[in-house]
Amino acid sequence: MPTDPANTDVRMRGFARRTTVEDALAWVDNQTRCLPSEFVSLWQAAGRVLAAEVVSATNVPGFDRSMMDGYALHAADTQGATAYQRMELKIVGQSLPGQPFAGSVAPGQAVRIMTGAPLPAGADAVLPAERTEAIEETLFALDEVSPGKNIGRAGEDIACGASVLPTGRVLRPQDVGVLSSLGLAKVQVVRRPRVRIVVTGNELQSAGTPAEGCRIADSNGPMLAALVERDGGVAILGGVDNRQQGDYLVPDNPAAILAAMHDPADIVLVSGGSSVGQEDHAPLLVARHGELAIHGIAMRPSSPTGMGRIGAALVFLLPGNPVSCLCAYDFFAGRAIRRLAGRPPAWPYRPIRLPLARKLVSQVGRVDYARVRIARGHVEPVAISGASILSSTTVADGFVVVSADCEGFPAGAEVEVWRYDD
Amino acid sequence: MPTDPANTDVRMRGFARRTTVEDALAWVDNQTRCLPSEFVSLWQAAGRVLAAEVVSATNVPGFDRSMMDGYALHAADTQGATAYQRMELKIVGQSLPGQPFAGSVAPGQAVRIMTGAPLPAGADAVLPAERTEAIEETLFALDEVSPGKNIGRAGEDIACGASVLPTGRVLRPQDVGVLSSLGLAKVQVVRRPRVRIVVTGNELQSAGTPAEGCRIADSNGPMLAALVERDGGVAILGGVDNRQQGDYLVPDNPAAILAAMHDPADIVLVSGGSSVGQEDHAPLLVARHGELAIHGIAMRPSSPTGMGRIGAALVFLLPGNPVSCLCAYDFFAGRAIRRLAGRPPAWPYRPIRLPLARKLVSQVGRVDYARVRIARGHVEPVAISGASILSSTTVADGFVVVSADCEGFPAGAEVEVWRYDD
Repeated sequence: MPTDPANTDVRMRGFARRTTVEDALAWVDNQTRCLPSEFVSLWQAAGRVLAAEVVSATNVPGFDRSMMDGYALHAADTQGATAYQRMELKIVGQSLPGQPFAGSVAPGQAVRIMTGAPLPAGADAVLPAERTEAIEETLFALDEVSPGKNIGRAGEDIACGASVLPTGRVLRPQDVGVLSSLGLAKVQVVRRPRVRIVVTGNELQSAGTPAEGCRIADSNGPMLAALVERDGGVAILGGVDNRQQGDYLVPDNPAAILAAMHDPADIVLVSGGSSVGQEDHAPLLVARHGELAIHGIAMRPSSPTGMGRIGAALVFLLPGNPVSCLCAYDFFAGRAIRRLAGRPPAWPYRPIRLPLARKLVSQVGRVDYARVRIARGHVEPVAISGASILSSTTVADGFVVVSADCEGFPAGAEVEVWRYDD
Repeated sequence: MPTDPANTDVRMRGFARRTTVEDALAWVDNQTRCLPSEFVSLWQAAGRVLAAEVVSATNVPGFDRSMMDGYALHAADTQGATAYQRMELKIVGQSLPGQPFAGSVAPGQAVRIMTGAPLPAGADAVLPAERTEAIEETLFALDEVSPGKNIGRAGEDIACGASVLPTGRVLRPQDVGVLSSLGLAKVQVVRRPRVRIVVTGNELQSAGTPAEGCRIADSNGPMLAALVERDGGVAILGGVDNRQQGDYLVPDNPAAILAAMHDPADIVLVSGGSSVGQEDHAPLLVARHGELAIHGIAMRPSSPTGMGRIGAALVFLLPGNPVSCLCAYDFFAGRAIRRLAGRPPAWPYRPIRLPLARKLVSQVGRVDYARVRIARGHVEPVAISGASILSSTTVADGFVVVSADCEGFPAGAEVEVWRYDD
């Protein structure tokens, strides 16, 4: 690593050129394919992404059943029945859910039946209980019923061979119910990407530690862990395959950062040291030991963002400033994680179009990520918008993206806000 | 329990009267208050609900710091500097993040400083590196800088005493970052409601078991578990405090159901046996051992829904038919869980207004939960809409609620669809 001051000064002068956001996104899309599948328990399947179409190997239900509480009988035996001309039948047994009637129903006979119970052999209709009167084993039909009435047929929910759910489906609670009704114990879903979070910065203390002197508590580790989990990844900090407290920070030296980047993962997020200054080790390490495809992006904040590959993993170099870190994650790393996870690549934020309360100024040539509030149906840019002011993103209700060819919007212009609280 | 057939027949005749959806919702709201708080690790806080306002006990950052890579100096020393009239200063040391300059900067001196590093005593501005030239320990300022420039002040992100996040906030990833920057290791959040799921039905086999003969695999257990977790609750099945495979079904007899309802929980969901038939034990049990406040609701599906209290818990009696179960959960139980959890009580579904492709018929006097698809910008009612057809909710993109005073909508009318895939 360069330690000569003159050499360092050259490196402090900034980026030679900046990649456009568009080109960086194209690189991300080009480098990311949906991961292979794994089987998970039905009980863990909600919210996971289906890796293959589910085709039913069975009829659901597997038998004809009653849709009402009443009596299974021959429809013909009720012909002409009314409250004034009751038809008399003999009750020969009952069919309960899970406890079918063992015999067959002959003409003139009826079997008491509950909703969901199997239709006994011989019967071709169910007369609802409220249209009957029963005295001991004698049934009086007070109404007619036509053949097939109040019967749910085998396979009427799902027929054997039917396509039930498509590949790529993010499983909803009722999807899990349907998969269960097929008798499946396990579901084939896309493997969750393992995302290693490498937080560097000698000024940092691990999250959960009060600031002390000139050291500050890390905010990017827990923020990134939460973002990764939101986007379907598994966050790995400090070499442990779980979010954890404790000391997960990586010392700000090239050997430690390189070792952390080489630990197994699908994606590595390096927070801090992503720029071109004296202590910015990560870009040189990626360039030397992998491929630094992009470094420096025409956007604000997050312009000192890099991306490339190291070993088998994609690596994203995120600025240490928390707002830049969030923005770079949202634009690039989150999209990569969602694509590996088989999820929709678009932002998980809800867009809403509203007029601006004040003008929103931007600079042509770079994309702006402007934090805004929504008040009284209008959009107000958040005034304190330095890249280090993370509270600007908690005060904000969302953000507006101002494209590189746009110098901003006048008051009253309608803009698209991406709401943080989706 | 009544086993006399004559008695049973009376009970099979249906509900004496049905409560309106509006009254049932009012009962739910009246019975539910936000639960007490608990402390969780910062790493587990994302998505949880803040139980108390967070007020900062500290300045963030705790010290003045540089916002640029450059040189900390006296602004007055750069007065009149240009590339052609360079001002010469002496570099006396450096300030790195976490490694401050120990001394004080006198007039005529400069300290090399990195972004985020503490501003040394004496200095009142930072001149960016790209507006300097350095030769060994001599610095040439090529530009002026005014006092205070490129300095981030102590407390500029969050001032000591400032309100940081309000009570009731559903914590976003960046909120967790901000809480971390305050040095907090634990966060006070609303306790998650413990929701016991009691699935009854002699015709059922536990989820994950292929259907066999006249027995069918339960779909409501895993569906309800996923819904409960979505709404911020902790799903408890089979007496174990976790989702599990294995046999969690409760036998369809009064003693077993009563015992399961009495196990500790904030909310008990009973699936199956909620109506007025021979095997519908739960309503009588709740009436006898607790309070059956509502039984029978003017809606379709889910009309045989009940709710009340048993012991300290709220209890919801959900129909066994999967669509009815989902609908009754969505209307009542989910709302109760969200309210106990301190979450917004409204549906977690995204509404969208679109025109109907075909007419949507409903019956005056009851609320309809109509599953619909969205195709080519139009809303199409899902044709197969029996309460037992759970696949109607996986084929559907969402649902339309038709109020009790409405007999439906003609083709072309704009309706509000609640999208399942929020």
